[in-house]
Amino acid sequence: MSPDEGSVAGTGEFALIRRITGGRSQPASTLLGPGDDAAVLAAPDGRVVATTDVLVHGVHFRLDWSSPEQVGRKAVAVNLSDVAAMGAKPSSVLVGLACPPDTPAQVVAEIMDGMWAEAGRAGIGVSGGDLVSADQLVLSVTALGDLEDREPVTRAGARPGDVLAVAGRLGWAAAGLAVLGRGFRSPVGVVNAQRCPEPPYEAGPQAALAGATAMLDVSDGLLADLAHLAEASEVGVDVQTSLLEVSTRLREVGSALGADPLRWVLTGGEDHALVATFPPFDDLPEGWRKIGVVTMPGSGVTVDGEEYRHAGGWEHWQQ
Amino acid sequence: MSPDEGSVAGTGEFALIRRITGGRSQPASTLLGPGDDAAVLAAPDGRVVATTDVLVHGVHFRLDWSSPEQVGRKAVAVNLSDVAAMGAKPSSVLVGLACPPDTPAQVVAEIMDGMWAEAGRAGIGVSGGDLVSADQLVLSVTALGDLEDREPVTRAGARPGDVLAVAGRLGWAAAGLAVLGRGFRSPVGVVNAQRCPEPPYEAGPQAALAGATAMLDVSDGLLADLAHLAEASEVGVDVQTSLLEVSTRLREVGSALGADPLRWVLTGGEDHALVATFPPFDDLPEGWRKIGVVTMPGSGVTVDGEEYRHAGGWEHWQQ
Repeated sequence: MSPDEGSVAGTGEFALIRRITGGRSQPASTLLGPGDDAAVLAAPDGRVVATTDVLVHGVHFRLDWSSPEQVGRKAVAVNLSDVAAMGAKPSSVLVGLACPPDTPAQVVAEIMDGMWAEAGRAGIGVSGGDLVSADQLVLSVTALGDLEDREPVTRAGARPGDVLAVAGRLGWAAAGLAVLGRGFRSPVGVVNAQRCPEPPYEAGPQAALAGATAMLDVSDGLLADLAHLAEASEVGVDVQTSLLEVSTRLREVGSALGADPLRWVLTGGEDHALVATFPPFDDLPEGWRKIGVVTMPGSGVTVDGEEYRHAGGWEHWQQ
Repeated sequence: MSPDEGSVAGTGEFALIRRITGGRSQPASTLLGPGDDAAVLAAPDGRVVATTDVLVHGVHFRLDWSSPEQVGRKAVAVNLSDVAAMGAKPSSVLVGLACPPDTPAQVVAEIMDGMWAEAGRAGIGVSGGDLVSADQLVLSVTALGDLEDREPVTRAGARPGDVLAVAGRLGWAAAGLAVLGRGFRSPVGVVNAQRCPEPPYEAGPQAALAGATAMLDVSDGLLADLAHLAEASEVGVDVQTSLLEVSTRLREVGSALGADPLRWVLTGGEDHALVATFPPFDDLPEGWRKIGVVTMPGSGVTVDGEEYRHAGGWEHWQQ
């Protein structure tokens, strides 16, 4: 039986690659783009920041909850967020896409459109990739970045007394997941936050320029990720709820679902906000809000000075 | 029900990451290794070569045919081969690993051992990665490389009259596939070639230094990949069978299976030999053997001056 003409099998590997790579504009930093054995990218700093994240259908996204374009945007966003969290400017992404042979070619094309759209939001392009057959849709993205002659901001430099600050949204994706999980499709603001995060890419380099002592992106939940920062920096961290922004929208959704919106803010992942620590007497750069302080070693991660009673965070194997 | 203690689910994401990253030595070019949001790697040349390949269980490898260690080696080898085919020296790999929650943690650890072993063969390490849950084992590897101030050798520079040459083995993996497909496990030489290629990484930079005009790695089959080179360079290519090495071992296997070993050499993929074109009057660098000539535009890919009657090559969707 010959495969459906509209499927990736019916379209054929090389025709599909031509379709998804054709007509794209590479940024000047892509010295050699797709079509050869490898891409060649500018690394003017003499170093390159590199990170990879894999997103699996049914685990990290669902095509009945998100459009292919949103899925593509999300796969790129979660990677560029990691680049920004080092204080670097994204320079390129490479994409591995595995899908069943009967996947509509249009779905693959729209995923790639989403990837290009999100890459474009960071001023870059998709400079290479691989397209293979699998039982399940799997997107693997590698993002590269440029430190622009700055030192990387790791998780390990926070000092007691530093200010803890955030850029970007917290709790929105978790609220969206709660809404989708109950079978609703609105409010669209939180639902779209679940479908595709909007990490504040520029805030990463800005924090580095402003002297951030440690930084990471919130992928698993604020408290869970702060535990990684506290461990790496050998400090404690205290989040002050009076400083946390719990927007009217989150309060409304919480009220409608009988859920505590503060819990989404403290433990919800997938918004890919950036969290950083700054020296205590400096002004915070634009877009950054103080949410707490760095405390003494051994004090752990606390909320208003006490242990938070609803543990949270995401482990991939415990779904 | 709690998951099996020996499985990745029973071991837990963070414990498994500690297990597979612990005790590894990063090369000096890894400025910041695993454990933060992203790795930081040296790119002394001001450019970085980057390529990504995804390998799927049941499509690109089978754990009943190969050990986990061989699978890990293969996933890294096929990527480093692409770096070498640009004339670059591998500098790092990043790994995305998706697997079912009930996968034995030991299998994941052995795959990573294989990745480290193959990376070590090229003098590099695994500098970052991601570990997620999926229905099927999927390995996504991104390899980075350093051009060492040389220009990349693309597929597009071959000129009529150039010498066509190969470094590495041709046909061995295809012979191994034929053996495994009949249910045999020997001869071990060809079977291991199928399980894990041994690309000649050093031959890539050596060809670039020697003035190679075009280069690629043979992943889909010699003739299929030469068609890409011919198209990109707008030339023809003629392979001369009298120059091709068809080893005694391949002849023996062909004889035992009633197959034509020359066909494996001409159309078999997965050995990841390097093929390059060189100016006609220069000596070939060590490890390179002449196998044909570059012909005039429009002549296509020929064997002994004629079209080869057994088309070959691999399309992912037509299995």
